[in-house]
Amino acid sequence: MQYSDQELIDRVAAGDLRAVARLITLSENREPRAFKVQAELFKKTGRAHVIGITGSPGAGKSTLVDALASEWRKAGKKVAIIAIDPTSPFSGGAILGDRIRMSRIAEDPEVFIRSMATRGSLGGVSRATLDAVHILDAAGFDIVLVETVGVGQAEVDIVRTADTCVVVLVPGMGDSVQAIKAGILEIADLFIINKADREGADSLHKDIRVLLSLSEDKPGSWKPPIVQTVATETKGIDGMIKALSEHAAWLASSPQGKEKRLQILEHSIRQIAEELLAEQIFERSRPELKKLVQRCLERSSDPHSAANELISAARR
Amino acid sequence: MQYSDQELIDRVAAGDLRAVARLITLSENREPRAFKVQAELFKKTGRAHVIGITGSPGAGKSTLVDALASEWRKAGKKVAIIAIDPTSPFSGGAILGDRIRMSRIAEDPEVFIRSMATRGSLGGVSRATLDAVHILDAAGFDIVLVETVGVGQAEVDIVRTADTCVVVLVPGMGDSVQAIKAGILEIADLFIINKADREGADSLHKDIRVLLSLSEDKPGSWKPPIVQTVATETKGIDGMIKALSEHAAWLASSPQGKEKRLQILEHSIRQIAEELLAEQIFERSRPELKKLVQRCLERSSDPHSAANELISAARR
Repeated sequence: MQYSDQELIDRVAAGDLRAVARLITLSENREPRAFKVQAELFKKTGRAHVIGITGSPGAGKSTLVDALASEWRKAGKKVAIIAIDPTSPFSGGAILGDRIRMSRIAEDPEVFIRSMATRGSLGGVSRATLDAVHILDAAGFDIVLVETVGVGQAEVDIVRTADTCVVVLVPGMGDSVQAIKAGILEIADLFIINKADREGADSLHKDIRVLLSLSEDKPGSWKPPIVQTVATETKGIDGMIKALSEHAAWLASSPQGKEKRLQILEHSIRQIAEELLAEQIFERSRPELKKLVQRCLERSSDPHSAANELISAARR
Repeated sequence: MQYSDQELIDRVAAGDLRAVARLITLSENREPRAFKVQAELFKKTGRAHVIGITGSPGAGKSTLVDALASEWRKAGKKVAIIAIDPTSPFSGGAILGDRIRMSRIAEDPEVFIRSMATRGSLGGVSRATLDAVHILDAAGFDIVLVETVGVGQAEVDIVRTADTCVVVLVPGMGDSVQAIKAGILEIADLFIINKADREGADSLHKDIRVLLSLSEDKPGSWKPPIVQTVATETKGIDGMIKALSEHAAWLASSPQGKEKRLQILEHSIRQIAEELLAEQIFERSRPELKKLVQRCLERSSDPHSAANELISAARR
């Protein structure tokens, strides 16, 4: 069904899930009216606790998210989950599409689950994810979980726009080294050692503690806790929820928390601006690009000069 | 020592390694003169075979790269290696810094090895990597290997600018599923199953073959071979080198190969344009950004509108 802009605003604000899903789709498709509606709805945001969860494939993020959602549901909280699926850079379609979630949660009509596809080199995933987060926040969800697959730069960028960033590691996967490699050590507000019944959990725990002790300790700054879980048996989930609440309280009450919230907002605006720009440029200057490619191939131009010409062409 | 622009051009073109290293640094630091010099040097490019290697952490990419470099050295080829290290998004510094390479290659003065850091959310790594590749190409290297850690979108973007994209998988790491997840299946020109002496190598081989058979088979298109290696024992390296040569020949001789080369060039120009734009925007409009963040915090603006205002401000 078709909603008017005002209907969309009112229904989303009232928590109507169909209107929420519709608006997220409009935003993904970059419909101009989505942005008008969102601008209005943004006024109602700021209440949800937005939690980003990242970690290497196979770390058990989905199981963890499901266990968390179950607990929150029992406590009467409204929970939304956004799962970022990497996209085929060529076809543009999401690869996992309807990802199969082996979970009780997928059957709970009260939990909103949405898969979002990354969009190849044009980016767009951070922008679309952020928009979805704000829509869900405005719709009255208490918790919005953003789950990303992989630990690359794009994934890190997405997670950095969450209030609380959770990094999930697993013993015996070389994961402590991996965390450093991916540059996620410094963005983590909370470390989860999942599959903690495996050998090596305590040594991984110690490794993270040592790495954390190397970073500067500013007064009033947040010290990322390390929580061990076995998500498949819902072990440690209470400890994880406690740590998440504490981080939310720190964000809301301390001067350093306020500073962090400003950083998150700044990062969000930059992400959106970058992606909007890239979209604008390449929509306006497609024929120009073809010509420039040809000139580079003939070595009568070079990629750097061509890039600058492309930018100028788009600005004209 | 200081080189004049013309000296830099001449020395790099003559294969002087110190001049090469110097120009790459200038380019990383975004010195305007670097771009002038590079534009001139680009005319001398197009001879090197640029090979991108990606795969999950622990897949043995560095060992593989070392084994390849050894073989090529024996055949008298000039080899350069660019290793992309993820950067801490906060400090801006490379995390691995001087990564420790346990290799014979690091001691071979004839092999040029350069670590490059990713640059946090401002991007810049694709641009700097591409520039380095072109500099090395102009300097007369026969082979330029670009090795990326991780399988995220940014890593995929980098690898897509190589002539030949190698995806390294390992049996028993859930890697076939992982390959699909990361969207790297369609960008691979060559699959390597490393650590092929482990259990599961043949089943992984079969999985990849099945997945490949699902994709459309256009006449004249490249069919990615699957090669099994044990890099630590230099097993299968000859097969890998053969497959790489065949791909280079296909690129050089077939109409589809020419089309692919145009795509690579187009992708390169777009990458550079995106990164230049982002840099320009955020350098010009830093004070504006602070104001916009504050307005979003007070909910008198929203991130989307703020992003658009940021873009307009930078254009003024």
